[in-house]
Amino acid sequence: MNHPLMPGPYPVSADTLFDIAPLPEHSRARQVQALLDAKTKPLGALGRLEALAVQMACVLDTDAPRLIEPQLVVFAADHGLARHGVSAYPSEVTAQMVDNMLRGGAAVSVLGRLHGLTLTVADCGVARDFTAQTGLYNAKVTGCEHGTADSSLVPAMQAAQCAQAMHQGAALVDHLPGNVLLLGEMGIGNTSAASLLMHRLTALPLAQCVGRGTGLDDAGLARKQATLAHVLARHPQALEPLDALAALGGLEIATMTGAVLRAARQRRLIVVDGFITTAAVAVAAALAPAVLSRCIFSHSSAESGHARWLAHLGVQPVLDLGLRLGEGSGAALVLPILKAAGALLNEMASFASAGVSERS
Amino acid sequence: MNHPLMPGPYPVSADTLFDIAPLPEHSRARQVQALLDAKTKPLGALGRLEALAVQMACVLDTDAPRLIEPQLVVFAADHGLARHGVSAYPSEVTAQMVDNMLRGGAAVSVLGRLHGLTLTVADCGVARDFTAQTGLYNAKVTGCEHGTADSSLVPAMQAAQCAQAMHQGAALVDHLPGNVLLLGEMGIGNTSAASLLMHRLTALPLAQCVGRGTGLDDAGLARKQATLAHVLARHPQALEPLDALAALGGLEIATMTGAVLRAARQRRLIVVDGFITTAAVAVAAALAPAVLSRCIFSHSSAESGHARWLAHLGVQPVLDLGLRLGEGSGAALVLPILKAAGALLNEMASFASAGVSERS
Repeated sequence: MNHPLMPGPYPVSADTLFDIAPLPEHSRARQVQALLDAKTKPLGALGRLEALAVQMACVLDTDAPRLIEPQLVVFAADHGLARHGVSAYPSEVTAQMVDNMLRGGAAVSVLGRLHGLTLTVADCGVARDFTAQTGLYNAKVTGCEHGTADSSLVPAMQAAQCAQAMHQGAALVDHLPGNVLLLGEMGIGNTSAASLLMHRLTALPLAQCVGRGTGLDDAGLARKQATLAHVLARHPQALEPLDALAALGGLEIATMTGAVLRAARQRRLIVVDGFITTAAVAVAAALAPAVLSRCIFSHSSAESGHARWLAHLGVQPVLDLGLRLGEGSGAALVLPILKAAGALLNEMASFASAGVSERS
Repeated sequence: MNHPLMPGPYPVSADTLFDIAPLPEHSRARQVQALLDAKTKPLGALGRLEALAVQMACVLDTDAPRLIEPQLVVFAADHGLARHGVSAYPSEVTAQMVDNMLRGGAAVSVLGRLHGLTLTVADCGVARDFTAQTGLYNAKVTGCEHGTADSSLVPAMQAAQCAQAMHQGAALVDHLPGNVLLLGEMGIGNTSAASLLMHRLTALPLAQCVGRGTGLDDAGLARKQATLAHVLARHPQALEPLDALAALGGLEIATMTGAVLRAARQRRLIVVDGFITTAAVAVAAALAPAVLSRCIFSHSSAESGHARWLAHLGVQPVLDLGLRLGEGSGAALVLPILKAAGALLNEMASFASAGVSERS
């Protein structure tokens, strides 16, 4: 943990939150591709790694990109909608998994240790009051300290609460060192919120946006779909990105959206995980399209709808390992590949420096 | 380097070379899957990582698999057939790239440093006499010290030379510490040898087995296909795996085949790279089918034919990054994912130990 518990109020204005410039013109990309083309390998032979190295160079504004103090933040919160049985697990698991992450027993804890990541769990509205401790960041929102309202009855968040969550996410990023942010999340019920946002943002049929989450059976999936259809009917006006975000919820998604906007503005590299983190990035990109240029989509999840959403965003995931865990596990897994892309650009010899003959 | 220059003669008999037992019955696999199912995650949520952890446990014969002193060997040799313009690069590049690897400037050198791999370059018949040096292993074969014969005229190797190469590969593995062998290769012209072997081993049409290698243009590809068809017509009797290996060549492929057989017998985990290393594994598996149970196929290469060959072998690659470099680059890239699979099995908390509620 490199930051204290976050003080308030949070000095991020909406203007600066959404004001994200496109990356500068393509001279950097051309320059870095030329460096790669001179390396001792056939043209293009490093495939996707070359594109990743170019993107990293452009985002970090250097010909020699290095990932500095990578930070993985797990945005955690509970969901009022979870009472309707939209998840295979009970809501209490969110707080229990926060404990597990902080004690080092969760998948993301193991991967963080293995790959030298700093892990921060942001309590964006978990249904428990935690004592202050190393690795835990307090980002609870006034009036929904223990989770969102039940979106089948009322908006998950009031507009002001959603804005507070976003600003707190931005302020969290200000507290983090380094030049790369890996996104993770934990929240029983949050595939429901993400599916609702996917439907509203993409206009794809709801059935194409809803999956089994942590492992619903067929009856559970049918119940989830019916519940989500009911939620949508409750909020017919929540069509614009911020309105949808507030009404359909996810305090962790709203906080993450603010964090993504802030990280993009600061030209940090953003490493996206699975379905839920894609929801936050999709909302951020709907508000500020240049966000996507800073994002690396680590993997295509096994959650139904994720691959389709990535295609809709026009982005290509790096890995496809059938993961459907969340937590930031896919983001953590791709980190060594990003380090490799940077190291190959920075350290490989050129044909000239190595005295290797070029093509016949 | 953990071994001296290899002494001769090489005390590996053909009997022990091909005698590889199937992995024991599935009790280990069931046991490890049960351990994974008790971890704090939804059932199956780690996707491919769970299958990798189970395979690693079975190969290494332990419920707590750890990769010890991973060794990447680059098997390097030249090809008599290269004089016919089957590659975009001249043969002298093989020796130049060996220099580059030993000096640390090649892609595999960079990835080896990044991931803590010990790199050994085995000179299986490069067209130069190298001075003894750290990281270089002398595995030249009597009578073809500078590469194979031109297989468009005569067999690439005599049967005895092919056998010597295989035994030297096996002896090389005996010199290596650790429990995991990563396969790499270097040899201008070696996609031609691999394509010929693919055709003979799979009976797929030659055109489906031949690709652009390091980057042939359309005319070059047509020339390569015509040359390879001519080679096949020269060796109509070379249908059995060992006969095909000797006639169609690749000293580095023959040496690697011996190394794979030996490593499989010793229950080392074998990490396969791209098209050329798949050729060695395919020959080994044709001789001793249990070899495949020890192999992890790191990636699907962009070389035309590789994905088809993997499907023909019934195996699933872990990564698909559009790589077509060889050297062992894909094998090196997958190593952190294998370490992650092991660490998740070994270090994640269980529902019971973490006090997390199970499914509703």
